[in-house]
Amino acid sequence: MEIVDRVKQVASHLTGQVEPHPFDPLTESEIAKAVSIIKKTYPDLHFNAVTLWEPRKKEMQAWLADPKNVPRPHRVADCVCIGRGSKVFDGLVDLNEGKIVQWELTEGVQPLITMEDLQIVETVVRKDPKVIEQCRLIGIPAEEMHKVYCDPWTIGYDERFGSNVRLQQALMYYRPDIDDSQYTYPLDFCPIFNADTHEIIHIDVPPVRRPINKAPPNNFHSAAIEKEGGYRTDLKPINITQPEGVSFKVTGRTIEWVNWKVHVGFNYREGIVLSNITFNDKGEERPIFWRLSLAEMVVPYGNPEHPHQRKHAFDLGEYGGGYMTNSLALGCDCKGSIHYMDANFVNRAGEPYTIKNAICIHEEDNGILFKHTDFRDESVCTVTRARKLIISHIFTAANYEYCVYWIFHLDGTIQLEIKLTGILNTYAMLPGEDTKGWGTEVYPGVNAHNHQHLFCLRIDPNIDGPNNTVFQVDAVQGPGEVGSVENKYGNAFYAKKTRLETAGTSACDYNGNTSRTWDMSNENRINPYSKKPATYKLVSREVPPLLPKEGGLVWKRAGFARHAVHVTPYDDSQIHPAGRHVPQTSGEPSVGLPAWIAANPSASLVNTDVVLWHTFGLTHFPAPEDYPVMPAEPMTVLLRPRNFFLRNPALDIPPSYSSCPSGKGTKTLVDKLSELAFGEKKCSKC
Amino acid sequence: MEIVDRVKQVASHLTGQVEPHPFDPLTESEIAKAVSIIKKTYPDLHFNAVTLWEPRKKEMQAWLADPKNVPRPHRVADCVCIGRGSKVFDGLVDLNEGKIVQWELTEGVQPLITMEDLQIVETVVRKDPKVIEQCRLIGIPAEEMHKVYCDPWTIGYDERFGSNVRLQQALMYYRPDIDDSQYTYPLDFCPIFNADTHEIIHIDVPPVRRPINKAPPNNFHSAAIEKEGGYRTDLKPINITQPEGVSFKVTGRTIEWVNWKVHVGFNYREGIVLSNITFNDKGEERPIFWRLSLAEMVVPYGNPEHPHQRKHAFDLGEYGGGYMTNSLALGCDCKGSIHYMDANFVNRAGEPYTIKNAICIHEEDNGILFKHTDFRDESVCTVTRARKLIISHIFTAANYEYCVYWIFHLDGTIQLEIKLTGILNTYAMLPGEDTKGWGTEVYPGVNAHNHQHLFCLRIDPNIDGPNNTVFQVDAVQGPGEVGSVENKYGNAFYAKKTRLETAGTSACDYNGNTSRTWDMSNENRINPYSKKPATYKLVSREVPPLLPKEGGLVWKRAGFARHAVHVTPYDDSQIHPAGRHVPQTSGEPSVGLPAWIAANPSASLVNTDVVLWHTFGLTHFPAPEDYPVMPAEPMTVLLRPRNFFLRNPALDIPPSYSSCPSGKGTKTLVDKLSELAFGEKKCSKC
Repeated sequence: MEIVDRVKQVASHLTGQVEPHPFDPLTESEIAKAVSIIKKTYPDLHFNAVTLWEPRKKEMQAWLADPKNVPRPHRVADCVCIGRGSKVFDGLVDLNEGKIVQWELTEGVQPLITMEDLQIVETVVRKDPKVIEQCRLIGIPAEEMHKVYCDPWTIGYDERFGSNVRLQQALMYYRPDIDDSQYTYPLDFCPIFNADTHEIIHIDVPPVRRPINKAPPNNFHSAAIEKEGGYRTDLKPINITQPEGVSFKVTGRTIEWVNWKVHVGFNYREGIVLSNITFNDKGEERPIFWRLSLAEMVVPYGNPEHPHQRKHAFDLGEYGGGYMTNSLALGCDCKGSIHYMDANFVNRAGEPYTIKNAICIHEEDNGILFKHTDFRDESVCTVTRARKLIISHIFTAANYEYCVYWIFHLDGTIQLEIKLTGILNTYAMLPGEDTKGWGTEVYPGVNAHNHQHLFCLRIDPNIDGPNNTVFQVDAVQGPGEVGSVENKYGNAFYAKKTRLETAGTSACDYNGNTSRTWDMSNENRINPYSKKPATYKLVSREVPPLLPKEGGLVWKRAGFARHAVHVTPYDDSQIHPAGRHVPQTSGEPSVGLPAWIAANPSASLVNTDVVLWHTFGLTHFPAPEDYPVMPAEPMTVLLRPRNFFLRNPALDIPPSYSSCPSGKGTKTLVDKLSELAFGEKKCSKC
Repeated sequence: MEIVDRVKQVASHLTGQVEPHPFDPLTESEIAKAVSIIKKTYPDLHFNAVTLWEPRKKEMQAWLADPKNVPRPHRVADCVCIGRGSKVFDGLVDLNEGKIVQWELTEGVQPLITMEDLQIVETVVRKDPKVIEQCRLIGIPAEEMHKVYCDPWTIGYDERFGSNVRLQQALMYYRPDIDDSQYTYPLDFCPIFNADTHEIIHIDVPPVRRPINKAPPNNFHSAAIEKEGGYRTDLKPINITQPEGVSFKVTGRTIEWVNWKVHVGFNYREGIVLSNITFNDKGEERPIFWRLSLAEMVVPYGNPEHPHQRKHAFDLGEYGGGYMTNSLALGCDCKGSIHYMDANFVNRAGEPYTIKNAICIHEEDNGILFKHTDFRDESVCTVTRARKLIISHIFTAANYEYCVYWIFHLDGTIQLEIKLTGILNTYAMLPGEDTKGWGTEVYPGVNAHNHQHLFCLRIDPNIDGPNNTVFQVDAVQGPGEVGSVENKYGNAFYAKKTRLETAGTSACDYNGNTSRTWDMSNENRINPYSKKPATYKLVSREVPPLLPKEGGLVWKRAGFARHAVHVTPYDDSQIHPAGRHVPQTSGEPSVGLPAWIAANPSASLVNTDVVLWHTFGLTHFPAPEDYPVMPAEPMTVLLRPRNFFLRNPALDIPPSYSSCPSGKGTKTLVDKLSELAFGEKKCSKC
């Protein structure tokens, strides 16, 4: 095998073809190859997913450590196929060996719904007589069925139908005109679609009917805005240019920027996957994270009336953050000098296809990085500007948009910022109807239900190597009452650290009252100054608890969201905290994270390879300001170096200005393009 | 008086001199006039502050409503003077009438320490024989006293010395070379300086002595970085230009930007003061906030060993965020097209002086404002970019820097962002000494103590007028257990609102577990869609409790910091929540906010003019990464419109791209300057 590999290397060198990095997503030709291998044996399946089966960690680490002598990990395709009768097949195809190496019929599960699966439903509901009848009852005549739309969701879980038949629920809407936002015209009933037979098998009809909304349209597209008086004309351009190009280097899918190095993967579920993140600390390339991704999310809605309990989308596990990703546009989604990466997927028929510009990589100015002035002499001053590297994608989950920004900072911080935008999920309401506090009338006849967006960030720390330990850290008062010898003035406080010892005892809730954070530490590498272990600290302040109650439907299905933090021993197979196949899981028993922990609760987490699962997000009580399109609402999680470096690692970033008392070595790199707004005088500072 | 005012108006019109807006800070000539009026009667005082006595709210509102007929509020100087024997005089000088209208000797208080006051101490300690002796004991010979520095702080409060003598404590340092950061060489003793007699009256010496640190310097100025290998050369410029100028208009100190209008004031205590903030809602200029400012802050340190309990600076009340403000530099602190405003103050001798470029006003691109794509057809898409208007200043509080950014967003949100940077306060430690958890050895021999930064944001809401009500809002589970009729699946949740009825019961703590926010609502203006009152919501997630214990020194002095929120009925005289004069307050009884509330605990807060005091911040456990200069750490508070507008108020912001299904009226304003990073292909999107 080793020889084969070397021959390949030589061959690729000769042909100029570079072999993919083992973390690279499958190329179009690799997807085609996997499909053709499967089709030879199983010609009648359709394809749900063909994605990279990531190399096992041990194998990959061995190869990275000694790529000349250790065999390169094989390229393996992880495949999900669906046959007649909602039969699901999970398989692995070794592309190097050109054969299926694993194949099984998986009972009682439903793989995610692809964009193609979604598109079929709208056609079916428009022709279904039962749907046409329901439309008629609320005021839509049969000849207007072309104005009826639906956002097909997975059914989530409905105990009446179980898990064996592949189902979707159709959230129904109406467009008076093709250009009108359908979310102003939600319909009050909900058809259930059998994805195997392409039939509507049931319609949920509420006890009180709500005729179609009569309010005028509420649109935000340009034709509507022009009609209302047009766009503002008082905003002058803010130009961002990088005439000398970008400061990052791209080799394949590995990005190097300042001291950072990171491999940028992408898959249909998680979207962006960042692997093997290292920081060059004065010549030493120090590992920090083996893998970072958004692994799952859930969006429970808070209206207890049937069938709204089914609205709790697992957007990543049930639809795929990669599959739903936008093709990004230069100068729209991203400004400046942009590097894009495409994403390759398989379609239902088994053909590879590409989303162009799925990932945006660019730099942004980030204000002041650090500053200090000696108050004795104002000219003794250092001011250094910050910038950030942003690796981002945006996905559209029916009504909503999620903008995901992985941000690298000069000071060693990694930030995950998520912006929520798009359109609220809406439901019909009668004039004067009481929302009972479960939603808000954001426009006449439009009820936007309370909901949460809970994201599960999967953090595979590699702080100076895989053997790490996680601590809960709380800011607490010191012992001793006011007046006591040890705390006379009552001002003692400290960081209380609690080691998370075993998987079964690792669950932590957030505690705003102690500014709770979590340390991922390498206790084998002690900072020579502070005598504390090299650490990355998880700082996260938007951490609502899962509001659906213990034992209820969402609580059972979204086990990962029960606590802010869970920690597990590393296992190659544990990527998806709500399960490999999420739609129609009943939560009895809960799959994914709760099952893994329950299987071995006493597994030690101390000084070993661990994974930290962090659930964060927000609770959204809609308001009219969020409609008809929602201004982006940002959320942030930080991973910050603590006791990792010997000092601020960004001291060698060129300052805008730096001087010292003696005047020696004054450095001036003031941005000469900045101007006074009204040119009324010249600025003499700096 | 009305006639006099009109004559003045005519006169100023004739001479081309514009009268200051009643909210404008005092001009240099107004300061000079106030001083000369005082000096006529009191020739021997020195000046601590001469600042605008802001017009009383009722008077101001009357004038704003009818400026032609209502007399213009007089220009009044609020003055603090100090005489021999630490005698403090508080007075008001009516500049229109040219006379002192109020004057009193205030007993037992000490006004803040000015920069001039600070500078004196270093000279005195270097010559003091007792200090020279202490230096000798820890290894600094007498001939090196010119290498000894101090950061003079107010004494805070020390029960041994009380409040009647004006005192400072000198935090001592050493610089081996004039260019070395003194914070690497903290001295272990602390002299007490009498500001009246300019004498060292006491030295606090620890029981265990710590000789001067022998570690090599740890510097960040350019000469040091060059010596260590120099600055990076791989960062390419990111240019930000506004060739058509800025999008805001400045009239005097009133800024108009998009729909926003705000008066920008500045004073020696709070720094930036934003007044009469309104939003033009489709032609209706709706009041939102009457006044916003950072009113106070406290930085308690967590080491209980004497005399570190005295380290709990009230940077605004004890030194002045305005007095310490930096003169900002174009292209260093601020990039793009900048409008600056200067700040005028009085010096000790009574002369006016100016800090040039004290306030920076500029716009920044802010990524995506909103986006939505119809998943049925990717070309049906609207994407609109955001920008923000930032009004900022930076102040240097001895070792630390506070960068204060007041940010206005297009969607009606006002954000206060504070970046902490500068240098950690440090104390000496012996090799191998145990920090006992009260601090971190950030560099050999350098102990950086745990501390909190707690800011008090004073919010005077004016949501569609002064009569507002504050609600605490908690995200909570709905009633009914899982399986019950009303909550079968357990997914019910809602926003629980608690009206804050009286000042005495208004104190609220933060609750991360309910994602607690606070609504400032006008119950007289109901949103016609949601039927909820017009509201601005306070969203703040960095809200640690005050860690110093109840009854202790900091708890007593910093009453405002005991809770996340207090609400009081509006009172013109209630601006400073830790008291008008903060240094050397004992906290027995607590002055400022606790006293105001205690004076009338049953004062109604319902549908009346109220002020909300919000304390937020962070708890900082230092690490070597924070040294020798700290990468900026940001914190954010949001004020968001909820049920205030009828819809997203930013729909008329020109989009980068907008199209609808029919293709009608497609709008393309794609930024043409954006480029592909490596020019490898042209981008066809949008």
